[in-house]
Amino acid sequence: MNEFELINRFFKASLEDHRVLLGIGDDAALIAPIDGNVLAVSTDTLNEGRHFFSDVPPFTLGHKVMAVNLSDMAAMGAVPRFALLSGSLPDADFDWLSAFSRGFFALASKYRVSVIGGDTTRAAQGGRSFTVTIIGDVPEALALKRSGATTGDDIWVSGTIGDAALALRAMHNDLCWDAPDLARLRARLETPSPRVELGMALRGLASSAIDVSDGLTGDLSHVLKGSGVGATVFLSALPADPVLLKCLADEKTRSLALSCALAGGDDYELCFTAPPENRAAIAALSTTLNLRLSRIGVITDSQKLTVVDEQQNPISPLPASFHHF
Amino acid sequence: MNEFELINRFFKASLEDHRVLLGIGDDAALIAPIDGNVLAVSTDTLNEGRHFFSDVPPFTLGHKVMAVNLSDMAAMGAVPRFALLSGSLPDADFDWLSAFSRGFFALASKYRVSVIGGDTTRAAQGGRSFTVTIIGDVPEALALKRSGATTGDDIWVSGTIGDAALALRAMHNDLCWDAPDLARLRARLETPSPRVELGMALRGLASSAIDVSDGLTGDLSHVLKGSGVGATVFLSALPADPVLLKCLADEKTRSLALSCALAGGDDYELCFTAPPENRAAIAALSTTLNLRLSRIGVITDSQKLTVVDEQQNPISPLPASFHHF
Repeated sequence: MNEFELINRFFKASLEDHRVLLGIGDDAALIAPIDGNVLAVSTDTLNEGRHFFSDVPPFTLGHKVMAVNLSDMAAMGAVPRFALLSGSLPDADFDWLSAFSRGFFALASKYRVSVIGGDTTRAAQGGRSFTVTIIGDVPEALALKRSGATTGDDIWVSGTIGDAALALRAMHNDLCWDAPDLARLRARLETPSPRVELGMALRGLASSAIDVSDGLTGDLSHVLKGSGVGATVFLSALPADPVLLKCLADEKTRSLALSCALAGGDDYELCFTAPPENRAAIAALSTTLNLRLSRIGVITDSQKLTVVDEQQNPISPLPASFHHF
Repeated sequence: MNEFELINRFFKASLEDHRVLLGIGDDAALIAPIDGNVLAVSTDTLNEGRHFFSDVPPFTLGHKVMAVNLSDMAAMGAVPRFALLSGSLPDADFDWLSAFSRGFFALASKYRVSVIGGDTTRAAQGGRSFTVTIIGDVPEALALKRSGATTGDDIWVSGTIGDAALALRAMHNDLCWDAPDLARLRARLETPSPRVELGMALRGLASSAIDVSDGLTGDLSHVLKGSGVGATVFLSALPADPVLLKCLADEKTRSLALSCALAGGDDYELCFTAPPENRAAIAALSTTLNLRLSRIGVITDSQKLTVVDEQQNPISPLPASFHHF
């Protein structure tokens, strides 16, 4: 199968968006902007052996490759519209690619994202690598930047935190749980739900936002640095899976649980800040979206991040976040 | 060095474009479209061991990674504006990355392309891989698509064809030449010149265009298929380096030379079609741009591609083009 057959078979979904003036099959795609909006553009790479296991089910990997990019749009309050998918592959495994593309396009279709381009190449050395570039719409004034947090703002997080990291630990056999617990957490790792609807609904409500991809404290630190502020986060307010809560309460597993909750990446929840007067609106949003939204801390003028434990003592040092290098 | 330090040190160039509303450092960049234009978007991946040698000088590789993407903008008649650079790296080699980024940004700066995002990841397995997504502007009606060629149009190509493939052969020791010849051809392989100015100037003159990245006959075939036409190309009209012409004239090397000229990729010249009444304008353009533009054939209604040799006999079979798989 050559590159063009691969693209035609797996990566060329039907284009329904009238803004796609020219799709896959030319030197570049042509897309029409929307008056009054600017374009949000982001890219993310997932590498075999680094971001995913070699034996990950290809359908879930296809989902995740799209999900992590949708999550960046969510974190900007942008509507995802267009994506380009590049895959470096050591071989052309028909069954594997078929399942991968089904997972990828199922999630793309859910959010009506048109795949407008890509590049399929052979990786002469090493494993699979996927890079997606995603493009979305947002009115400039409503974009959720990392620089908008101010002293006194609440800090919020969606869903539960640390699930994906906990699943990773379990799959590495650091821990042993019941099968239903493991399946639930593993789904959080392998098929994360990008919070696209939340991001769009937070326009005008949140003062800043980021997605939790590298770990809560690390990602929140980017907001603090971007906004020139500090924060206090309350461990007892962190929304967590029952398994994580149990691990936190057990001295033997507390350190691991703290690491998952505070520094575990890959959850793709949104961490955002908002002025206290928006609490009711955010609570209402939680109901509307059927999505847990938890107030976990407050922005301070201290220029540093403090996480306090159940006894209000600062946790020091904080667990280290995921580093790509 | 972690991901953020890497990005800050190597991949965060100064942003001067007022249309970059938010650059590297948030979940996504924000860019402003231009009224009346649409956006051309394309992505290209280069993998170690497949698209470049492990020992390629990093400065020239940085140049080439940007050049192949600029070439896609040229082939659409688009003005390149924004780029996202993703690198999967087995290690953080300071000197190597420094030279790579100098090559990359030198060419980006030449065309005033703002680097607005990227992702730096560790490749757990295998060699380096770079994916660039490039975004440019073009008025929709003037975009150079692959579908616009009509019977009777001339077929043109810029520069010389087959140089990069010939250099590859020499580096593989299939051939032995004088050092100056090898240096000239190797520069064509390693530091190709994207024909951005030509692409923009062909707006309104050319009926279709494509860049010669995978080989002349293969790339021209995409135009023929996209336009529903055929073509006759005259081998004697192909613009080629003196070394290639010498190889063509020598029975021992003719087959190799034919393969380089007709199916050699990586030249990043433009192949375009235009109605005969535009010949004078295209000749004038050649002078203005100081760039050789050669009329190599004609579009026919035959639905197939024929290349005729010096005696006007069809060459059959045609050499096979570069396949990514």
